[in-house]
Amino acid sequence: MGLVVQKYGGSSVADAEGIKRVAKRVVEAKKNGHQVVVVVSAMGDTTDELIDLAGEVSPIASGREFDMLLTAGERISMALLAMAIKALGHEAQSFTGSQAGVITDSVHNRARIIDVTPGRIQTALDEGNIAIVAGFQGVSQDKKDITTLGRGGSDTTAVALAAALNAEVCEIYTDVDGVFTADPRVVKKARKIDWISFEDMLELASSGSKVLLHRCVEYARRYNIPIHVRSSFSGLRGTWVSNEPQGDQPMEQAIISGVAHDTSQAKITVVGVPDKPGEAAKIFRVLADAELNIDMVVQNVSAASTGLTDISFTLPKDDGRGAIEALEKTKGSIGFDSLRYDDQIAKISLVGAGMKTNPGVTATFFEALSGAGVNIELISTSEIRISVVTRKDDVNEAVRAVHTAFGLDSESDEAVVYGGTGR
Amino acid sequence: MGLVVQKYGGSSVADAEGIKRVAKRVVEAKKNGHQVVVVVSAMGDTTDELIDLAGEVSPIASGREFDMLLTAGERISMALLAMAIKALGHEAQSFTGSQAGVITDSVHNRARIIDVTPGRIQTALDEGNIAIVAGFQGVSQDKKDITTLGRGGSDTTAVALAAALNAEVCEIYTDVDGVFTADPRVVKKARKIDWISFEDMLELASSGSKVLLHRCVEYARRYNIPIHVRSSFSGLRGTWVSNEPQGDQPMEQAIISGVAHDTSQAKITVVGVPDKPGEAAKIFRVLADAELNIDMVVQNVSAASTGLTDISFTLPKDDGRGAIEALEKTKGSIGFDSLRYDDQIAKISLVGAGMKTNPGVTATFFEALSGAGVNIELISTSEIRISVVTRKDDVNEAVRAVHTAFGLDSESDEAVVYGGTGR
Repeated sequence: MGLVVQKYGGSSVADAEGIKRVAKRVVEAKKNGHQVVVVVSAMGDTTDELIDLAGEVSPIASGREFDMLLTAGERISMALLAMAIKALGHEAQSFTGSQAGVITDSVHNRARIIDVTPGRIQTALDEGNIAIVAGFQGVSQDKKDITTLGRGGSDTTAVALAAALNAEVCEIYTDVDGVFTADPRVVKKARKIDWISFEDMLELASSGSKVLLHRCVEYARRYNIPIHVRSSFSGLRGTWVSNEPQGDQPMEQAIISGVAHDTSQAKITVVGVPDKPGEAAKIFRVLADAELNIDMVVQNVSAASTGLTDISFTLPKDDGRGAIEALEKTKGSIGFDSLRYDDQIAKISLVGAGMKTNPGVTATFFEALSGAGVNIELISTSEIRISVVTRKDDVNEAVRAVHTAFGLDSESDEAVVYGGTGR
Repeated sequence: MGLVVQKYGGSSVADAEGIKRVAKRVVEAKKNGHQVVVVVSAMGDTTDELIDLAGEVSPIASGREFDMLLTAGERISMALLAMAIKALGHEAQSFTGSQAGVITDSVHNRARIIDVTPGRIQTALDEGNIAIVAGFQGVSQDKKDITTLGRGGSDTTAVALAAALNAEVCEIYTDVDGVFTADPRVVKKARKIDWISFEDMLELASSGSKVLLHRCVEYARRYNIPIHVRSSFSGLRGTWVSNEPQGDQPMEQAIISGVAHDTSQAKITVVGVPDKPGEAAKIFRVLADAELNIDMVVQNVSAASTGLTDISFTLPKDDGRGAIEALEKTKGSIGFDSLRYDDQIAKISLVGAGMKTNPGVTATFFEALSGAGVNIELISTSEIRISVVTRKDDVNEAVRAVHTAFGLDSESDEAVVYGGTGR
């Protein structure tokens, strides 16, 4: 029996009852002979409450002090969890990100992990303790300041510790039973996926699936740490994310892993761009300089009569205003007619390594959308993914139609609780 | 202009408004040319809420994890204060006890400061920052674990930093205007003391005055750091506590500094102790072995007929049960008739260096009590203090009578807000 890293999100430790439930589960793993490292997020709404407080005292809540503030949340939940475990008669010690050796760069509020030196964790484990570690936080290499890892930070902490400690598996406990073939809130017949490859999971994560963040999966793939996403409430087997299925995991991967959707993006169309070399490059240089992340990009064929073309791209709504401003400022030097901004869009993505060898997939996808009366506005594809942009109002119907068309529907309508895990 | 350490208690930073008010005051000191180090407690009831949470998850909330939990409170308040100061256009950095170099022993929940190595604070100051430090917490020398300093810990942090940084003064901001000649909740005509010596302040603190704790005053006396206790609301000059009055401080110390009272003690009487050498020693050895702190001790003259005597002592009510149990267990070997326990007592103390040279003080004290119809049950004196034990029900009247008898009443009845500062 080897070492297991378990991560519990804020909803799993939202109150004293939740903490005691988690403590029992942790002790169970220990009793089964595992060494156990537990990574916890802040309790329930703690982080939001701290952010609100910061807003009340300062309009410019960010940087070093904001990190100092937010990391108080995990400190509370981890200490309480350690106490709850001790109350069950087992030894536990809690560690801040700094004490756990999570070394980061100095970019406050969204620091990246540079190194993990879990000497104190290893010692605690060797002495028979269960080690509890604060998720989401680290210490900067140069200044020794407290940093936070940004969105999905606690999952990343868990995977990074699992890699540094050579864990058997990183278990991500959440409030859903695993990764589903579609968002169960939209598709009642969505099925839990038993096993999915890192690659397909990465595509799902970047296409709107919120169970695991891209960054965490990417880290796990690089160090080949199997992730087991499962419910902290049900105790059922969840979804394994790994390179290859192992042991009793299903050996065959489905052609299609799942359908993801994303309504958090906006579409900007640059109208009337001279269709000559370098014009598109100028546009995306401006956006890159403004540090805006672009997702899909589509350029229409230019009308022969005018020599002008339209370039459309999608990006997070939050970046929309910044992009419009950046482009407007350089309108003269770039040369285009006008800008169109549209935030009533949805992106629907079909993900699966099997589509590489199944030529009919694209056709079936488009037929399903068409059958549901859904109009396609943009298309973009990768080797194992097809994404389309549609009207936002059509998204639920579109996802359901595609899910059914690819035979992903389960037999039963299950009621599944589904919620974001925040960080 | 030198370095000033300012300490703000939980009631001063109870909400966003309080934090902003403190920020303004801190910035004012900086603008006046001081280098400023600010020590903060947790916001308002944060600590109590965390203790409640701990109680919900574990019946044995103590030790290492309890300290980890509680220290989250200061982390929140100090980060918010730093943000509020930045919002006023000044540079501020916050530091945990560990980052500030507050090195302690490993006795969790009531650690003692071993050393202060404020290198990072000095650097922050030299770079023009206001340094904010979490009160009440440190890091253990051997294990590098987070520790807390117990009751009055934040005041002690402030004084210890003031000593290590060679500060001009340690300002303790609280919700009262300073140290008073008596508890203003009991004595409406109590007067604010402008200056008091370390010695008198130590006696007041150990006699029930709650504005400053004995431990903090003792630390300040050892390193000769003047303390200025003042209100974070009024901005008025408060009470200076130091070796000698300085500058515009009143040169002459009053004969009597003040009247303190304490209703948190209980009295235990050991009845029928053989009046021979070594018997009393046995009793107090038993109590010492149980780590119980005894305050007043009185032994009556033995009755010649029986050769037995009674020994009475006072101690904190919280220790009462432990003392009774320890004594009962050794009843056979010690040899006494019975134990009497009484928690309906009050201790009233008169403090002032001037009583050494004023022989009438004791007489006036007792006459005042007698005039108010208050019966004296125990008496104990030091060079600069007289304490008596009375019925608890008599305490308010007794304090008022003594306060008047020594001419301490102010001209006006001021309404003063008075409250404990917790830690």
